[in-house]
Amino acid sequence: MERISWISDIIVVVSPENIETMKTIIEKYGHKRVTVVEGGITRHRSIFNGLKVFAENEFSSHLLQKPEVVIIHDAVRPFVEEDIISKVVMAAKEHGAAGAIRPLVSTVIASAADGCLDHSLERARYRASEMPQAFLFDIIYDAYQQCTDHDLDYGTECLHLALKYCKTNAKLVEGTADLWKVTYKRDLYAAESIIKENLSQQVCVITNVKETLAQVGFLLPESLKSQIKVEAISISLSKNDSCLQNIISGQCYNYVCVNEKRCALQEIQELVDMLEKSNIPLLYPVVLISVHLDISENNSFSIGMEDLTTIKKFAREAKKKNILVYGLLIQYKTSL
Amino acid sequence: MERISWISDIIVVVSPENIETMKTIIEKYGHKRVTVVEGGITRHRSIFNGLKVFAENEFSSHLLQKPEVVIIHDAVRPFVEEDIISKVVMAAKEHGAAGAIRPLVSTVIASAADGCLDHSLERARYRASEMPQAFLFDIIYDAYQQCTDHDLDYGTECLHLALKYCKTNAKLVEGTADLWKVTYKRDLYAAESIIKENLSQQVCVITNVKETLAQVGFLLPESLKSQIKVEAISISLSKNDSCLQNIISGQCYNYVCVNEKRCALQEIQELVDMLEKSNIPLLYPVVLISVHLDISENNSFSIGMEDLTTIKKFAREAKKKNILVYGLLIQYKTSL
Repeated sequence: MERISWISDIIVVVSPENIETMKTIIEKYGHKRVTVVEGGITRHRSIFNGLKVFAENEFSSHLLQKPEVVIIHDAVRPFVEEDIISKVVMAAKEHGAAGAIRPLVSTVIASAADGCLDHSLERARYRASEMPQAFLFDIIYDAYQQCTDHDLDYGTECLHLALKYCKTNAKLVEGTADLWKVTYKRDLYAAESIIKENLSQQVCVITNVKETLAQVGFLLPESLKSQIKVEAISISLSKNDSCLQNIISGQCYNYVCVNEKRCALQEIQELVDMLEKSNIPLLYPVVLISVHLDISENNSFSIGMEDLTTIKKFAREAKKKNILVYGLLIQYKTSL
Repeated sequence: MERISWISDIIVVVSPENIETMKTIIEKYGHKRVTVVEGGITRHRSIFNGLKVFAENEFSSHLLQKPEVVIIHDAVRPFVEEDIISKVVMAAKEHGAAGAIRPLVSTVIASAADGCLDHSLERARYRASEMPQAFLFDIIYDAYQQCTDHDLDYGTECLHLALKYCKTNAKLVEGTADLWKVTYKRDLYAAESIIKENLSQQVCVITNVKETLAQVGFLLPESLKSQIKVEAISISLSKNDSCLQNIISGQCYNYVCVNEKRCALQEIQELVDMLEKSNIPLLYPVVLISVHLDISENNSFSIGMEDLTTIKKFAREAKKKNILVYGLLIQYKTSL
């Protein structure tokens, strides 16, 4: 949610034993707007704890300003898009409550006491209730205040509480397949592959304006094109370059920067600064490969190693910002 | 289903445009017991077509013997285990019909005509109906013969037909998480990772009994142990070796065979024969790396290349049996 600017506060409800870990993560990636709250022993009790931060003084060191609309989401649905969140919020503003739904993948059946089929539901008439859901704060908070211990201990559906206690029929919004719940080990495999695929869709090749690099600036993008979408730009890196700025804000996570200067640390530093400002490393790691093309007559192995040591030190600092810097030194000597 | 010996016939129902591809696959992997049948335009019509092979003369060139129990399964659930198939079949024998079920992952809701929530189902009372399902043949065939065009065009649940037309309440059998339906792109990622994980659980390192190889036979398994389960055996390969036979029937898919003879093709051939007989390559490819360790004083590059060419030819033949043979030549010369 951190990447959506119109969300003013983010409450993360965490089980007691994971609170410290969560705080470390928030600190590490510099997340703002996040408040960590201790969860309860059931889903509904945890959500209720989260809502109390906006309404009950004793629950938080500083009471957060009560929002008009509150979004409830599961951490196990990490691929939610801004579009569906926005749709659910708009529907909640109008109807008091709203939630994402998906078609059923399997038929739903009811079993009798003897473990045999009682009846099957007509699949087309039913939907799977997914997350995100959104509510006018006053409605969902009112529902939680009224609901019984039985609801809190055995219920799972927030839309049901809004209907039962506040007579609010939630608006149902068709969600995309991305909303699925990362539940089983196979879902972790799928999530990993989706992240990798997203990150490797595009690479930006940056070459210096110097003539000697023109050929590299042409050949490298050409050979990469069959594998990946390539943006090739030839510039002298400067913070005001709008072309590079556009590529960064277009969520490009991979950069190859080719330079022939002995140590192009200043250029790399400028690029790292631009990336850091863009906030994209907050979401996923950015990969930046700095290629030093040394074609001078008097290049030497030891000087090359010195350069790589400098890059290594620099990379250690960049890593803290979730930017992975790699140095590649290519020495080429024409025979005399 | 090919790997389960007590299944006598397998009917694969395929859309008309994919029939030729399916026949090529069956031929390529030498599947026996498989009959390909043209599917209909809906799920129920396709299943009905499959059942007719056992009952209607005009539908097949040779009428297959009518079975007592028929299993219905989806190709999109490739990780089904023999255990659940067997349980469902036994339950069908007793109850006339049976099907695998799973707990619901999301709450199921009914929407009203205005796109708002009508009511939500109590999740604990319902289950997702999955596959495999099994039926006494006469019951399910009778149900399909009686059912209406509306059922055939809009229905999806076989258990429902058995209940509606034959008053048979199917026995519900709890299935494992493996039964999930490969539906979305993310499921393909998950499936790929599961297959890779299964195949790479174990490697068998085979070294010849000769003393010179004893050290390799010790060091290689030691260094692999941190990555993977290693079975190390030191034998002169022969078809009667029961230790190797046990490893093969234990579904090991990876073999490293270290030999110091110039061309150990006979040994490799014996191993390929054993693997082929075991039927395990029918399910997934077997990887066999033949390492030629050439430590003789007079080893030469050209002789090495000859050996590799021989292996390459051999590998081309083995590939047809779904056994991937790789040759690795290591020449080591002590300085004189």
